[in-house]
Amino acid sequence: MANEKAKRTAITPTREQDYPEWYQQVVKAADLAETSPVRGCMVIKPWGYSLWENMQKVLDGKFKETGHVNAYFPLFIPVSYLEKEAEHVEGFAKECAVVTHSRLEVGPDGKLLPASPLEEPLIVRPTSETIIGEMYSRWVQSYRDLPILVNQWANVVRWEMRTRLFLRTAEFLWQEGHTAHATENEAREETIRMLKVYEDFARDYMAMPVISGKKTEGEKFPGAVDTYCIEAMMQDRKALQAGTSHFLGQNFSKASNIKFLSESGVQEYAWTTSWGVSTRLVGGLIMTHSDDDGLVLPPKLAPLHVVILPIIHSDSDRGKVLEYCSALEKEISSGGSVRVQVDSRDIRGGEKAWGWIKKGVPIRVEVGMRDISSDSLFVCRRDTGEKKSVSRAEFVSGLSDLLGDIQGNLLKRAEKYRNDNTVEIDTKEDFYSFFTPKNSKKPEIHGGFALTHFSGDPEVEDTLRKDLKVTVRCIPLEGDDSPGVCPFTGKPSRRRVIFGKSY
Amino acid sequence: MANEKAKRTAITPTREQDYPEWYQQVVKAADLAETSPVRGCMVIKPWGYSLWENMQKVLDGKFKETGHVNAYFPLFIPVSYLEKEAEHVEGFAKECAVVTHSRLEVGPDGKLLPASPLEEPLIVRPTSETIIGEMYSRWVQSYRDLPILVNQWANVVRWEMRTRLFLRTAEFLWQEGHTAHATENEAREETIRMLKVYEDFARDYMAMPVISGKKTEGEKFPGAVDTYCIEAMMQDRKALQAGTSHFLGQNFSKASNIKFLSESGVQEYAWTTSWGVSTRLVGGLIMTHSDDDGLVLPPKLAPLHVVILPIIHSDSDRGKVLEYCSALEKEISSGGSVRVQVDSRDIRGGEKAWGWIKKGVPIRVEVGMRDISSDSLFVCRRDTGEKKSVSRAEFVSGLSDLLGDIQGNLLKRAEKYRNDNTVEIDTKEDFYSFFTPKNSKKPEIHGGFALTHFSGDPEVEDTLRKDLKVTVRCIPLEGDDSPGVCPFTGKPSRRRVIFGKSY
Repeated sequence: MANEKAKRTAITPTREQDYPEWYQQVVKAADLAETSPVRGCMVIKPWGYSLWENMQKVLDGKFKETGHVNAYFPLFIPVSYLEKEAEHVEGFAKECAVVTHSRLEVGPDGKLLPASPLEEPLIVRPTSETIIGEMYSRWVQSYRDLPILVNQWANVVRWEMRTRLFLRTAEFLWQEGHTAHATENEAREETIRMLKVYEDFARDYMAMPVISGKKTEGEKFPGAVDTYCIEAMMQDRKALQAGTSHFLGQNFSKASNIKFLSESGVQEYAWTTSWGVSTRLVGGLIMTHSDDDGLVLPPKLAPLHVVILPIIHSDSDRGKVLEYCSALEKEISSGGSVRVQVDSRDIRGGEKAWGWIKKGVPIRVEVGMRDISSDSLFVCRRDTGEKKSVSRAEFVSGLSDLLGDIQGNLLKRAEKYRNDNTVEIDTKEDFYSFFTPKNSKKPEIHGGFALTHFSGDPEVEDTLRKDLKVTVRCIPLEGDDSPGVCPFTGKPSRRRVIFGKSY
Repeated sequence: MANEKAKRTAITPTREQDYPEWYQQVVKAADLAETSPVRGCMVIKPWGYSLWENMQKVLDGKFKETGHVNAYFPLFIPVSYLEKEAEHVEGFAKECAVVTHSRLEVGPDGKLLPASPLEEPLIVRPTSETIIGEMYSRWVQSYRDLPILVNQWANVVRWEMRTRLFLRTAEFLWQEGHTAHATENEAREETIRMLKVYEDFARDYMAMPVISGKKTEGEKFPGAVDTYCIEAMMQDRKALQAGTSHFLGQNFSKASNIKFLSESGVQEYAWTTSWGVSTRLVGGLIMTHSDDDGLVLPPKLAPLHVVILPIIHSDSDRGKVLEYCSALEKEISSGGSVRVQVDSRDIRGGEKAWGWIKKGVPIRVEVGMRDISSDSLFVCRRDTGEKKSVSRAEFVSGLSDLLGDIQGNLLKRAEKYRNDNTVEIDTKEDFYSFFTPKNSKKPEIHGGFALTHFSGDPEVEDTLRKDLKVTVRCIPLEGDDSPGVCPFTGKPSRRRVIFGKSY
């Protein structure tokens, strides 16, 4: 019987049955987003967009607290700008939207055709280092003009061949910070400061534990000196790169000619950084917490904390139950910090409750005549599935703690999953075995994070990518940093790094 | 002597000398925006962007209060979508950015060339009725799915030939609301509701009085049944269309096939609306209030309400003055509603004060040793230029009222200017004379709003546009609606309409 029950899930297939399809179904069931008729571009629906809005609000506050201001730069980048930085063009020319005309005219067959060709083609920004660098070169003359600490909220386009809602789309929304400094040290400090902002945000708001680290040469941003990242583990044990912060050295300031007269009267190139997170975070949020019944949301980012469901068995009860629910809603929301809503739609109770389960609302409260007469509420937690009757007074006074408990529980659960699937591996054989699916019934869920010594040879990375689709996710900034021996080359290794499969 | 003094202005030229150039110089002096190397695209600098952010915050709140939610739709629109609505394509095909390729490759001369042509070209959205309509046709099946009340914050591109910072740029930022309803009546109510939201926002936050009205057939949005607008008068007496709200009837639902099963079981087309305001509002804000010393900001949208300027005459005073200023800043900001900052940069006092004058900060407070000893402050109002010594306690306790007074004064001043330059005109001769420059020394500033009867003939509009560059700005929704005779045709007129030159 228990077994029978366990099989009934709101999402089909389950994570174990088909993880990628489960993800698509969770997104669909929660009405978060859908594919559009424009190749690779998604439509972010209201429930999904409100998650991004909540993330934006918190991040924007953190950027401002750390001294940054927002600005806005052009969507288009002249092709000649892209050419200025050799690695950068290599990285982005392969997949970009190219604007070549500025008008449409009716062709011989009555169809609209591109007309008025541009003198120089433009690309839709895949990232804005080059166009922002050009502006900074105009703004910066003296060390007094530095630092520049600017962030931009924008859309960007990368013409990805294989797309997946939130995780990889041709167009996505993001923020990109671009800063310029007088010294290398200051720019390096900024790079790490913003990495920490991302790490704290992921942990404290998304309840998504991340490992902060540095990318290897082969995995870094095209044009960067050093790329730092936060890496999270999803429930298929793959890594999701959730945010990056780049120390760009003087590469882009040389490409864009961002020069300044130093305090000692010498012309110098500025030191720049860039850092970004995107709507991919929404994908990470979904995959970190959701279960086979759909989306599970951490309270700090949930559009709605509590949904009140009136249970009406007869028309004569309706007025009384709705009135009670409405008063409860008012009481709960009066503090201003809890987002609550009564769902009084005239649909079946089961359908209604399951709708909110699939949408991930942290707490559901059912109110029927019996509850009213005992002044109690039937309270259901989305994260644990726990359901119990609680006195109204107790619920209201304990609600803030309950939300905090849910937030904490989600983080603890995600940490446990990550830690349970992170192992130290010291031989090539164990490494290959770890990353090879064993159970043909759930081929998608296997492996995890391998903490393995690595001598840094790019050939090893190429081989592992080819053999196992495994890459170095990052060289962690913290944790055990004792040296050892690389199992792939036998050469000395400075410390263990994180290997994993990734999105 | 007074005359001498009046000639010294921070902005050259003055409004009277050369209004368009004055505008550019105000934008530059306040560091609001600048042109970019990408044709027609501007860079919105931090001070300018924070004005847009403050506008967004208020408007977004008002949209949510009126039941709307945010979502996000693709940047690109397939050309075939644009073709679905005949007037719409006519309106937007003439100037749009066309994406034709998805890759760049190195050509024979070593330069990057477009590669991988798309099967169907895409245009960068100039507005999103067609792509959003396509999605709504998927989402709407039954009357239960209606209304859809969605807004999008986004960038759009219209390949304008002559651009002007904020007022007319190839790329601009805006919001576009798109709603679908089961009945004509509901859609019409929505159209007017959002027009009123814009009207209230312009008046209550921007301190910019506007006239709400309906566009004539010739001036309406391509594809709309009715276009409503808010029109404001700038200080060169030209009209700025500051926001529009369109009743689209069933035009776009027929083009996109947004059909639903009605409550009575009949397949019907939905009734849709769209409405938008853009970064053009920032241009309107600048031109409504600024003077020959630069930007003047209404407190409700100012990034900073009060700037505290320490006056330091000797190094021995420095510590004491800065400490006093810092305590004052803390006291002022403690309530949470006043945005205040101490400017302790080590530059000349005059340069510093003028910098903030040009940036439009409502209140400057100068603090020197003499002020400290008398516990008083030297307070300067940006809007009136009034400067006086006030006791610290009086200033702090009266600050909120002072900001309210400034906000009110700006609105009153703008209303007076608009009313002074709005005249009833009843003959063709007077009309032509009104819109013809008389003073060759200030050719840009003449005319105003002419309240004139109009029979509605499109030929008259064509002639006036050709002869005088004058158009019907709107048929006002309020004010004197008594009928009369059209001075251009002698035919009967339902009511006076607003004629004007425009941006």
